[in-house]
Amino acid sequence: MEKGKLYGVGIGPGDKELITIKAVNVLKSADIIALPDSASNKNRAYEIIKDYIKHKSVIYCPMPMVKDKQVLKEYHNKSADEIISYLDKGKTVAFATLGDPSIYSTYMYVHRIIQNRGYNVEMVPGVTSFCASAARLNMSICDGDTPLIIIPATYRDNKSLLQLKGSKVLMKSGKNMVKVKDEIASLGLTDNTFMVENCGMDEEKLYYDFNKVEDKSSYFSLIIVKDNME
Amino acid sequence: MEKGKLYGVGIGPGDKELITIKAVNVLKSADIIALPDSASNKNRAYEIIKDYIKHKSVIYCPMPMVKDKQVLKEYHNKSADEIISYLDKGKTVAFATLGDPSIYSTYMYVHRIIQNRGYNVEMVPGVTSFCASAARLNMSICDGDTPLIIIPATYRDNKSLLQLKGSKVLMKSGKNMVKVKDEIASLGLTDNTFMVENCGMDEEKLYYDFNKVEDKSSYFSLIIVKDNME
Repeated sequence: MEKGKLYGVGIGPGDKELITIKAVNVLKSADIIALPDSASNKNRAYEIIKDYIKHKSVIYCPMPMVKDKQVLKEYHNKSADEIISYLDKGKTVAFATLGDPSIYSTYMYVHRIIQNRGYNVEMVPGVTSFCASAARLNMSICDGDTPLIIIPATYRDNKSLLQLKGSKVLMKSGKNMVKVKDEIASLGLTDNTFMVENCGMDEEKLYYDFNKVEDKSSYFSLIIVKDNME
Repeated sequence: MEKGKLYGVGIGPGDKELITIKAVNVLKSADIIALPDSASNKNRAYEIIKDYIKHKSVIYCPMPMVKDKQVLKEYHNKSADEIISYLDKGKTVAFATLGDPSIYSTYMYVHRIIQNRGYNVEMVPGVTSFCASAARLNMSICDGDTPLIIIPATYRDNKSLLQLKGSKVLMKSGKNMVKVKDEIASLGLTDNTFMVENCGMDEEKLYYDFNKVEDKSSYFSLIIVKDNME
């Protein structure tokens, strides 16, 4: 029997309309839907795709936010094993991941394991949270010859990157907001800094004045520091 | 009469399926379609959206690749004036732009002019060329705590950015391929470097071995330099 194929499907950042036609087609034609199971992502991903996956089997892959690499690896291997059990039966599995799979997606750990075991895998790109946030703010992130530096929440030395020439995006900064606000202020960048909390969701909030951002923000807070203020 | 609204619509990088549902809805409901008119973009954008804009008026906005800022400004103002003439008649205008409007899109120059003149403007985010290219290569761009640095083709000091910790994306590097190849090689990054030429098009070409890239490449060549090679 021919083995099934795994698709890693970017489903965009939250707004149901910001999913691609390809993602919808892959989700509709898949036999099994896999979803990341982490406290922050589970319902958000399901809400985006629920209209396309009626009557399909859904499996949840634990993606806990733990730092211990060995523990994480065990979770990823377990998810890979479960997905492979379906691929071995010739089933197509579509793993739905928020935003785009190539940009800080935990899905890719599972993707690499299954790819390395010789299975057929394909990624479907999606709209990133930073592109969606810039659209909600009605502004560009970078123009002309300005570089763009994207900094994940777990990066330790924001300040050295914030000092470079270029626009910056700080992903999922909710947890470190006090530290980030200090860094931005100490570099004199407050007037160039904008934020979107819960982009595309009912609770969405836009900040054109970074001083108004509270110390406690949602995990889904995205900050844009613009280089050129046109 | 109520004024019309301008939408800046990201239509993805080339593959017709990599357009969002929102982009399709906005294009279908618009009165007027605007397209960038530059040697490289014109047909590519039209091909992606032609099924959705049948029987609609299409205007072409010149976006020449000239460096003289004053000349460019005149072109942008002219395009803005033409679009505004429709908005003043209450028409909705959808300006289709490749990739995503917030990332190095020349559309944004026109967007800002029209926004500053007090008109209602909205951006629809799209799939970027780098996310689409990573998907075709079947690999992530950045994971975990790795920063991502995106370098536009017109940036002059690639080498200082290529030396920083993190993954890098070089946008539209076709014109400077000899220089870029030298820089990558001199930093010992050749084994970490991948390229996609004409992503999502019939002429698409994937390079897993950067040594095989020819000195003359398409304008639509996207390079990914990975930080961690897992």
